Amino acid sequence: MPEMLTQTTDFNHADAVIDSTFHREWEELTRVLKKLPLHLKASDQAGIQGSPIFDPVGTNEHIRDNLCKIPGWRHTIPIPPEYDFLGTDVDLGKGGVLVEVQFSNYPFLLNNTVRAELFYKAKTPLTGKPIELAIIVTKAKMFPASNSTLYYEQAKKQLTALARNSVFDVPIRLVGLFERESGITPILSQCRET
Amino acid sequence: MPEMLTQTTDFNHADAVIDSTFHREWEELTRVLKKLPLHLKASDQAGIQGSPIFDPVGTNEHIRDNLCKIPGWRHTIPIPPEYDFLGTDVDLGKGGVLVEVQFSNYPFLLNNTVRAELFYKAKTPLTGKPIELAIIVTKAKMFPASNSTLYYEQAKKQLTALARNSVFDVPIRLVGLFERESGITPILSQCRET
Repeated sequence: MPEMLTQTTDFNHADAVIDSTFHREWEELTRVLKKLPLHLKASDQAGIQGSPIFDPVGTNEHIRDNLCKIPGWRHTIPIPPEYDFLGTDVDLGKGGVLVEVQFSNYPFLLNNTVRAELFYKAKTPLTGKPIELAIIVTKAKMFPASNSTLYYEQAKKQLTALARNSVFDVPIRLVGLFERESGITPILSQCRET
Repeated sequence: MPEMLTQTTDFNHADAVIDSTFHREWEELTRVLKKLPLHLKASDQAGIQGSPIFDPVGTNEHIRDNLCKIPGWRHTIPIPPEYDFLGTDVDLGKGGVLVEVQFSNYPFLLNNTVRAELFYKAKTPLTGKPIELAIIVTKAKMFPASNSTLYYEQAKKQLTALARNSVFDVPIRLVGLFERESGITPILSQCRET
């Protein structure tokens, strides 16, 4: 079966943290990401109506459902009430690892980063243990997608600008999902009632 | 002339930074805030149509116009292109002081905080000198306002949660605008074409 391709960029020595402590969690996540079929849906955006675009909901569900078959992974983990201005829940986690799947509008990356930083600094035991690593999964720019949705190359540029100036300390591995140039990534097309 | 009331909360020793370095800038800003008339406009929100609510645009303009009559103050200061994911400009500044007037939706507080932190860490000379202090001006909850707009008490709670966990290092003075209980703050009512 053909595999989805991934690229990664590490901030604050996420690579060392994964090698020493979260090798297993990383292996489990990449196994799911590589088997990910490309989810497409018909756009309802003016100008490109009907064209196939990246389906954030379907892709998200696939990652969540498959990762949570593996022991220890949890999804929709509630954020403590005192931090509710940062959202109601985080996407996925296991042990001290937090995973956010971010296919939404680009300002959400800042929110994900700030809350990962807060949980890291506050040693919040969201997933049973204090958070020591955040993994943020994004799609590459190569996928046709709705306007203003975040893509990997943009997230990389933003986190690099912040990290270069030590704005955050939490180790973050940024993951980008890429399609094979040959276009043989398996496709799941989805029809939705409008 | 009756005065608008203000409350302040300091983070990361903003009080010491103001006392030692930015006493004059703080005096200039408070002089403008205290003379601020209460700007109201008719709501166009369902359920409260026509009721007088806080007018963010009019209040913002009044602060900007009056502060910029004082030598050294500038408004709409461009953000360097490499940080354009944090917005196009900051509201006001003089020397090493950055002022954001934030009457918009509450997620903008995080954006203001992250960019103040970035400019502080990067020693960005937005206002001629590296940023050493951020002042964020908000309205109190007591003012009728559009749904989901930020208010002082909420901003204080959010920044306190972040500061308690050392998520940011930039000295911030949070300012809240309050009305006299007697309601004798001068009122400027504004009609706009819809």
